[in-house]
Amino acid sequence: MANAETAGFQFNHTMVRVKDPQVSVKFYTEVLGMTLLSHYKFESFTLYFLAYDHSGGKMTPQALKDSRFAREGVLELTHNHGTESDASFAGYASGNTDPGKGFGHIAITVPDVAAACARFERLGVPFKKKLTDGSMKDIAFILDPDGYWIEVVPPKLMLGPDDV
Amino acid sequence: MANAETAGFQFNHTMVRVKDPQVSVKFYTEVLGMTLLSHYKFESFTLYFLAYDHSGGKMTPQALKDSRFAREGVLELTHNHGTESDASFAGYASGNTDPGKGFGHIAITVPDVAAACARFERLGVPFKKKLTDGSMKDIAFILDPDGYWIEVVPPKLMLGPDDV
Repeated sequence: MANAETAGFQFNHTMVRVKDPQVSVKFYTEVLGMTLLSHYKFESFTLYFLAYDHSGGKMTPQALKDSRFAREGVLELTHNHGTESDASFAGYASGNTDPGKGFGHIAITVPDVAAACARFERLGVPFKKKLTDGSMKDIAFILDPDGYWIEVVPPKLMLGPDDV
Repeated sequence: MANAETAGFQFNHTMVRVKDPQVSVKFYTEVLGMTLLSHYKFESFTLYFLAYDHSGGKMTPQALKDSRFAREGVLELTHNHGTESDASFAGYASGNTDPGKGFGHIAITVPDVAAACARFERLGVPFKKKLTDGSMKDIAFILDPDGYWIEVVPPKLMLGPDDV
């Protein structure tokens, strides 16, 4: 519950590690439609901040960058330099299987789930759950380049018959 | 980049599993100031949806619930029934150590990081990184009840001297 001490708090970002930022930034911008707000290179790693630009492209690059810690819905990708070309790198855990279970997924709300999924199929995106799989026919799960689960949901979704 | 096919997409939520929802929902509402938008019980698990209510408490319970898949900045907690009282349950992985490295953290933007951290200390919240630890003196990391890392950041943060 909001109170005077937490007024102004925002759920700013979620961070996941990625093997190859060229692949991942391309996926999140071109397939999912996010915008790269900024990136910053440290000695051994680089951070990429992405989010949906709800201004319809009207924000300047500086305004996009300034928004990275001042809004909700930001995805931070951490690239530890070298993983992209390290043949011995086993990849990151999705968080959905033992050992390492904890994190589950991120979710993208889309106006038309069927249209979005048809486009993902056309683009060759792997699915964890197609709309026709399982009992929930209104949601799908796709996989990002590292195997993280991404739920695709409609803005209005009933979780069950008594979820009114 | 936004295009006609991804217009209206939103980064809706991030899901993590929690051992005991009584403890976790209390933490995210009372300590971090989120609002429980809705919860829904399935046979073997229950989902809790939380987010910051930026309306200042003006939204009705139904409006809060209706917003759960139609906004950004939502946190979904999944409780697999029984973990809260299962002495053999080893706990969930934070995603920050092997095996299971992948997911990193969520981040909360706060208007005054020093004041927020002083309050977290007063409330007995464990820290992964206090403001005085390490080289970045403007950010802290606290731990949620399951040990997930939560970064505490100011709305304006420079990542390094050349991050202008």
